[in-house]
Amino acid sequence: MKFIEGGVCAAKGYKAAGLHVGVKTRNKDKKDLALIVSDAECSTAAVYTKNVVKAAPLLVTKENLKDGKAKVVFANSGNANACAPHGEEYAHRMCSAVAEALGIQVDDIIVASTGVIGQTLPIETIEGGVDELISNLSYDGSNDAADAIMTTDLAKKELAVDFKVGGKVCKIGGIAKGSGMIHPNMGTMLAFLTTDCAISSEMLQEALLSATNVSFNRVSVDGDSSTNDMATLMANGLAENDEIIMKCEDYYIFAEALNNLCIELAKMIAADGEGATHLIICRVAGSKNELEAETISKSVISSTLTKAAIFGTDANWGRVLCAMGYSGVDFNPEKVSISFESTAGRITVCENGCGLPFDEELAKIILTEHDITIDIDLNDGNAECTCWGCDITYDYIKINGDYRT
Amino acid sequence: MKFIEGGVCAAKGYKAAGLHVGVKTRNKDKKDLALIVSDAECSTAAVYTKNVVKAAPLLVTKENLKDGKAKVVFANSGNANACAPHGEEYAHRMCSAVAEALGIQVDDIIVASTGVIGQTLPIETIEGGVDELISNLSYDGSNDAADAIMTTDLAKKELAVDFKVGGKVCKIGGIAKGSGMIHPNMGTMLAFLTTDCAISSEMLQEALLSATNVSFNRVSVDGDSSTNDMATLMANGLAENDEIIMKCEDYYIFAEALNNLCIELAKMIAADGEGATHLIICRVAGSKNELEAETISKSVISSTLTKAAIFGTDANWGRVLCAMGYSGVDFNPEKVSISFESTAGRITVCENGCGLPFDEELAKIILTEHDITIDIDLNDGNAECTCWGCDITYDYIKINGDYRT
Repeated sequence: MKFIEGGVCAAKGYKAAGLHVGVKTRNKDKKDLALIVSDAECSTAAVYTKNVVKAAPLLVTKENLKDGKAKVVFANSGNANACAPHGEEYAHRMCSAVAEALGIQVDDIIVASTGVIGQTLPIETIEGGVDELISNLSYDGSNDAADAIMTTDLAKKELAVDFKVGGKVCKIGGIAKGSGMIHPNMGTMLAFLTTDCAISSEMLQEALLSATNVSFNRVSVDGDSSTNDMATLMANGLAENDEIIMKCEDYYIFAEALNNLCIELAKMIAADGEGATHLIICRVAGSKNELEAETISKSVISSTLTKAAIFGTDANWGRVLCAMGYSGVDFNPEKVSISFESTAGRITVCENGCGLPFDEELAKIILTEHDITIDIDLNDGNAECTCWGCDITYDYIKINGDYRT
Repeated sequence: MKFIEGGVCAAKGYKAAGLHVGVKTRNKDKKDLALIVSDAECSTAAVYTKNVVKAAPLLVTKENLKDGKAKVVFANSGNANACAPHGEEYAHRMCSAVAEALGIQVDDIIVASTGVIGQTLPIETIEGGVDELISNLSYDGSNDAADAIMTTDLAKKELAVDFKVGGKVCKIGGIAKGSGMIHPNMGTMLAFLTTDCAISSEMLQEALLSATNVSFNRVSVDGDSSTNDMATLMANGLAENDEIIMKCEDYYIFAEALNNLCIELAKMIAADGEGATHLIICRVAGSKNELEAETISKSVISSTLTKAAIFGTDANWGRVLCAMGYSGVDFNPEKVSISFESTAGRITVCENGCGLPFDEELAKIILTEHDITIDIDLNDGNAECTCWGCDITYDYIKINGDYRT
C-alpha cells in the first residue's frame, strides 16, 4: 500500500468538479458547490453524526442509500441546511436538479451541506449552477471539489492510496473538510471517499465504520459535535477484482488501506483545526484495553487547558494528568509517566505520577515544533491508542467570535 | 432569609486571616496563606472532586473528617500539592504546624491547596508563616482569607446569609475561589463555609451535598475538572438553636439558606471565569425531568463554540441547538424554542426547531450586556434547570497559554 496523488478522482471512473454560485456570499473566489460522479453504479456506505439534531441532507442521504447504491455526491458549503425552513424539501430539490441533468435516479445521489445553521438554503442559486457544474466535471477535478467543500478550512484535504487485491491494482481516494467526527467543529466534518475496488455494500459499510472508528472518531478540535457530519464511500468495481463479499484476505487488505487513508485525512483535519498552530498527537500506552486508552487520549486532546498550554509551548503536564483523571477511566495515577516529544527531541516530565525536574529550555524547544506528541504510559497493560487534536489559539476565538455575521 | 456582609466570619465565633509568605513567588502583594478558626468544635461536612487524580490535602482532609468534627481551615494558594513529591507528608505537616500553635488536635484541621500541579510544596516557607498568620486572626478577617485563596481570580468571593431557626437568628457565610466543581478550571474551585447553626454532621453533609448539586456542580468555566476541588462547611452551634438532627422544618430552612448562598457563590465563580467578559445563564424549561434539563444546560454552557459566539455578541443559536443535540439527551428538536435575554431586552431566535427572522441590531444590543440568559424551552414537560458559565476570550488563551512559567 502506498499514498498517491489524485484525491477523490484517483480511482478509475470518477469525475469531479467545483464551482462558485453564490451560497457563500462574502467571497466570490470561494467555490461553494462540489460534485463527484462515478461512471458506473457504486456499492455505497455512509456514517453520520450522532447529534440528535440532524441536518436535512443527512436524512435525505440516509433515505437514498437504503438500497446500498449511489453514483453521485452533490454538496454545498456556506449553508448547513440544518434547522432551517424547507430543509428536506430543498435537499430533495438538490438531488432532483442533478438527477435530471445527469439522467439518473434521484436516489442515486448523496447530498450534503456545510456552513451556518438555521438559514434558508438559497436553493434557486444552487439549482441555477448545476449545468455549469456538470460541464466542469473532469477526471482531474478532485482539487476543485476539495476546494468547494471548505468553510473555515485553511488547507485542502485530499489523498489517495493504491494496493493490490487478487492481482488487480485498486485505489481508494478521498476529499475531506474539518473538523472532527465525534467532536467536530460546527463547520462540519465531511469526507467523501471513492474506490474502484469491487466490494459489496455490506462489506463496504463494515470497512467504513471500522475505519471511521480509528480515524475521524479519534479527532477533536473543540468538543463540539456537528449536525451535518458525514463520511461516505462509493465503490464502482472498475478495478475488476473479484468482488469482495466476505471477510476474506482481500477484505483485510482493502480495510487496511482504507484505515490508513482515513487516519491521514483525520490528521489533516486535526492539524487544520480553526486557528490551530500545533497538531497534538496523544498516544496512551500500557492500558488494560484499547477503549480505556482511547477514552483517556480523547480526554487529553479535548482539554481546553492542555490545548492552551501547547499553544503557549508550556510543558504543563499537570493539566494532562488532570484531564486523564476526569476522563471517567479508573486508573492508578501513581503508575503514570508522561513525556513530550517532537522532531526536536523528547523529554519525560512525570514518572510514577510525580513531577520530574526537567530542562525547561529543552521543553520549550520541543514544544515549538508543529507536531507535538504527548506520550502517556499507564504501565498497567499492553493496549494502546492514539488520538489527534490541536491547540486553542487567539485565532480560534477570533474566527468563532464572529463566524456567522 | 437575606444576604448580609461578613463572609466566612459572619456567623458567631469564627476568626479568619490571610498572609503572604512566599508560596506565590511572583508577586509579594498577593496573600498565599488563609486560616479560618472556630471558637468552638464544629460538626463538619465536605465534598471533593470526582477526578481520579486527587491532590494530597484532599486525602488528608478526608481522613481528618472521619469523625465529622473540625475547628480550623488552613489553605495555601500558589501550589496545588498535587502529583508532587512528599505530597501527603507535607499536607500532614501543614496540619501539625497549625495544630501545635493553636493547641488543638491535628485531625481537627481541614487542609487545602490550590495552584500549580506537580511542584514540591515549599513546606518550610508555609511552616515559617504560621505564627504570624495566627496573630493576624480576627473576627473581621474574612476579606483577607478570601484574598489569600485566590489564584487567577480577579474578584474576591465572599457572602453570607441570615435566617431564623426555632426563634434564633442563624448565619451561614463563606469564601470561595474559581472556577467550577464538575467542570472547574485547573486553578481549582474551593469553598469554605461556616455557620453558627447547631446541626449534626450527618444533616450538614446532606445539606452540603444537595446545595453543591444545585450550585457549584452547575457551573462550568472550561470543562476541565481539577484535582483539588473541595467545599467544606463547619457548624459550631453558637447560635444556640435546638440542634438539627433530622429532616424537620428547621432543616429545610437551613438547607434553603445554604442553597441560596451556594448558588450566589457559584454565579460569582462563573462570572469570574478566567478572561471572561460575560456571565452566561442557561435556563432549560419544558423538560421531562430536571436531570435532562440539567444535562442539556451543562452541554450548552460548556460548548466552546457557544462561548465564543457570546464573546463575539453573535446570536448564533445554531451552536446552542447543536450543543443541546450532542448532550446525550434524547429530545425532539422540532419542539425547541430559543431566546436570548439580558437587561437590554429579549429576542426569540428559534421556534419549533427552526430559525426565525430577527433584528440583528437588537440582538447585538442584548448580547452586549454582561449577564446573558440563554432561554431554552423543550416544550415537552414541566421540569427545568439553570446552569451558569462564561464566554471564552482572548484573555483566557493568554492566561492559560502561560500560566505556569
